[in-house]
Amino acid sequence: MDAPVETRRPPFAAWLSETNDVTKRFLSAGSIPDLVNLAGGLPDPATYPGAEVAELAAAAARDHAAETLAYGTVDGLPALRDEIARRFSTPELRLSRENVLVTTAGMQGLCLVGLTMLDPGGIIACQSPAYLGALDAWRPRSPVYRPFHPDRNDFDPVAALDGARFGYTVPNFSNPTGKLVPVERRKALVAAAHETGTWLVEDDPYGALYYDGPPLPRLLSISGAMAPGPYRGPVVYLGTFSKEIAPGLRIGWMIAAPEAIEAFGMAKQGADMCTSPLCQRIALDALRTGLPEKIRPGLLALYSERRNALAAAMAEHLSGLFDWEVPVGGMFIWATAKDPDFDTDRLFETGLEHGVCVSPGRVFDPAGKDRRSIRLNFTLNPPEKLAEGVRRLAKACAAMKG
Amino acid sequence: MDAPVETRRPPFAAWLSETNDVTKRFLSAGSIPDLVNLAGGLPDPATYPGAEVAELAAAAARDHAAETLAYGTVDGLPALRDEIARRFSTPELRLSRENVLVTTAGMQGLCLVGLTMLDPGGIIACQSPAYLGALDAWRPRSPVYRPFHPDRNDFDPVAALDGARFGYTVPNFSNPTGKLVPVERRKALVAAAHETGTWLVEDDPYGALYYDGPPLPRLLSISGAMAPGPYRGPVVYLGTFSKEIAPGLRIGWMIAAPEAIEAFGMAKQGADMCTSPLCQRIALDALRTGLPEKIRPGLLALYSERRNALAAAMAEHLSGLFDWEVPVGGMFIWATAKDPDFDTDRLFETGLEHGVCVSPGRVFDPAGKDRRSIRLNFTLNPPEKLAEGVRRLAKACAAMKG
Repeated sequence: MDAPVETRRPPFAAWLSETNDVTKRFLSAGSIPDLVNLAGGLPDPATYPGAEVAELAAAAARDHAAETLAYGTVDGLPALRDEIARRFSTPELRLSRENVLVTTAGMQGLCLVGLTMLDPGGIIACQSPAYLGALDAWRPRSPVYRPFHPDRNDFDPVAALDGARFGYTVPNFSNPTGKLVPVERRKALVAAAHETGTWLVEDDPYGALYYDGPPLPRLLSISGAMAPGPYRGPVVYLGTFSKEIAPGLRIGWMIAAPEAIEAFGMAKQGADMCTSPLCQRIALDALRTGLPEKIRPGLLALYSERRNALAAAMAEHLSGLFDWEVPVGGMFIWATAKDPDFDTDRLFETGLEHGVCVSPGRVFDPAGKDRRSIRLNFTLNPPEKLAEGVRRLAKACAAMKG
Repeated sequence: MDAPVETRRPPFAAWLSETNDVTKRFLSAGSIPDLVNLAGGLPDPATYPGAEVAELAAAAARDHAAETLAYGTVDGLPALRDEIARRFSTPELRLSRENVLVTTAGMQGLCLVGLTMLDPGGIIACQSPAYLGALDAWRPRSPVYRPFHPDRNDFDPVAALDGARFGYTVPNFSNPTGKLVPVERRKALVAAAHETGTWLVEDDPYGALYYDGPPLPRLLSISGAMAPGPYRGPVVYLGTFSKEIAPGLRIGWMIAAPEAIEAFGMAKQGADMCTSPLCQRIALDALRTGLPEKIRPGLLALYSERRNALAAAMAEHLSGLFDWEVPVGGMFIWATAKDPDFDTDRLFETGLEHGVCVSPGRVFDPAGKDRRSIRLNFTLNPPEKLAEGVRRLAKACAAMKG
């Protein structure tokens, strides 16, 4: 060869030069020995119902091979779509199979929203800070972000949504902040979506993880109540079994107006043709046999104890450096440095040197600027390890001040 | 509401107005009673190894729950990547884990190629006619197609590839034509890829389905022999277990230079985060226990008999109307009308009225113009049903002339 091979290749797509490898680093940080991983958003593997899924999987392949080992329809197994429609229907929200598309977990739902709703340069009205995975999913569509902050007093939902291709929010225990969008703000957001016509994406991976008090109403339910009849409203609801059964199934779903479901199906056809019918059948039978309900009490007890442990350790070791609110559910505590010049990008690196991994705030900022905050996960590790992680983090902070 | 809800929504992405719903129609045509489905590209569900997969699935979930029910790494299970690298390595082709990415079946491989290698308006050098699913996968990237025809005498591979973002070919039993790219043309294509630097995508879903004679060498192997050392060449190989084990697992893989694998991983991160580790583990253990090798003789016997049956029925009923070659493998026979004004879009519709579904040639033409050809699948149906389908097709042709 006259020249190095790689210099002669066509360029990769332009968006790749703007992307980040933080998620990959989070996932692979799990393999560093003795690291305390407070980054990522992983459930505790001990909560995975291996024995139950083994039984369901064997039955699915053995008794339904012609369905589960075959290509499935693009939109998902009809029986699973029906079951999801039934579970989310209320007296005021009428859903049927036509409102539901099964996805290859929640991430694909985000990807399909981008593929169908964005042309290059399209505007996303985005709750900020925002889920890193959503920013990743939309990067290939080169969107323009218009951030909104539903927790601020001057929040104007009509101004936020008007003219955007869609709005994006995680109303239950926002990733990364762990905060709830309050009921009145939910109603105002949905009313603004109905008024402006803008699609409103409700990403809800943590909706089953309320540790204190009853769940707030979904945007989808609020929207259904505003327009009687079979659901045709502007809310696009994204769900996943990753937190309620296990992420390894890679099963999620979208609930939306039938014309949006049809568009998502066109995009899914070219993305992965269909989601594994074997995994879909496992999820369906898990729902039918009440597996999520069986698991949930144990999950809630385990994770609320860990939230308390992380909050207690933070109060002991970090209260001079950071401010935070203890969330009433979800998987994360979001902490913001008291010092406006504190650099959490550096803390990410220094933390790794001290044996602890946290998520730097910048990756959740659509503008990529916030270097003052960190996200701490409390679901993966037991209390004593959470405390150890916080102690290491405090040492890393001290080392940065050096 | 003052106006119908749907008129007030933001527009969907522009590419959606150019797409087709033929794949969805193929998949759902399966549910029309008594229809003979010669469209699609479905294996016979009777070939799916339900009992074997049931055992593997139960063991995967029961004995490896912390791995199979968890999030996996973006690139796939390391052991599965190793096993695929091992299987495709030859004395002249050195592959390791860094050359392999596990995908959510072959379709996602195509999608990831588009996401990483195309900017809007990028040129694809495309073997024509081409797989419909590939055209679907790349539609959201708004590519420009430069068709090439490796079976024509004036085929110039350097002119075909030069300046394109990538070339695309299905050298084994092309979908839709069922033809092989001959060995000398394979070598010329690979040499042109090395000379121009252009990525060359070798899509190989049918490589295990040779009914007559030994397999021709892969482009990947030819490329490896041209540049010794760990593989860094221009070929991007796409494989799938959909034909060798079962489509319902949704497991495929990409083999390529490490820098391309890294780019695919960045795109996969935002597409579905990871492929189901449960399904990956089933595929891994299927490979380790030799399941594809166990299944293959039966598949080859079944499908070659069906190919013969379809060819015989066509010779009896369609030889006055169409020309075709009997393929030595794969899943399809491609037939072109003798009459240049014959309209196979109309035949698709008239066929449905006569109880037979075929794939119209237009959907495989990157330019969307060919209305003279049809693709007939022979793997799904037993011989007598194939014959009945051809009789119905002949009647539909007669009715069109009527």
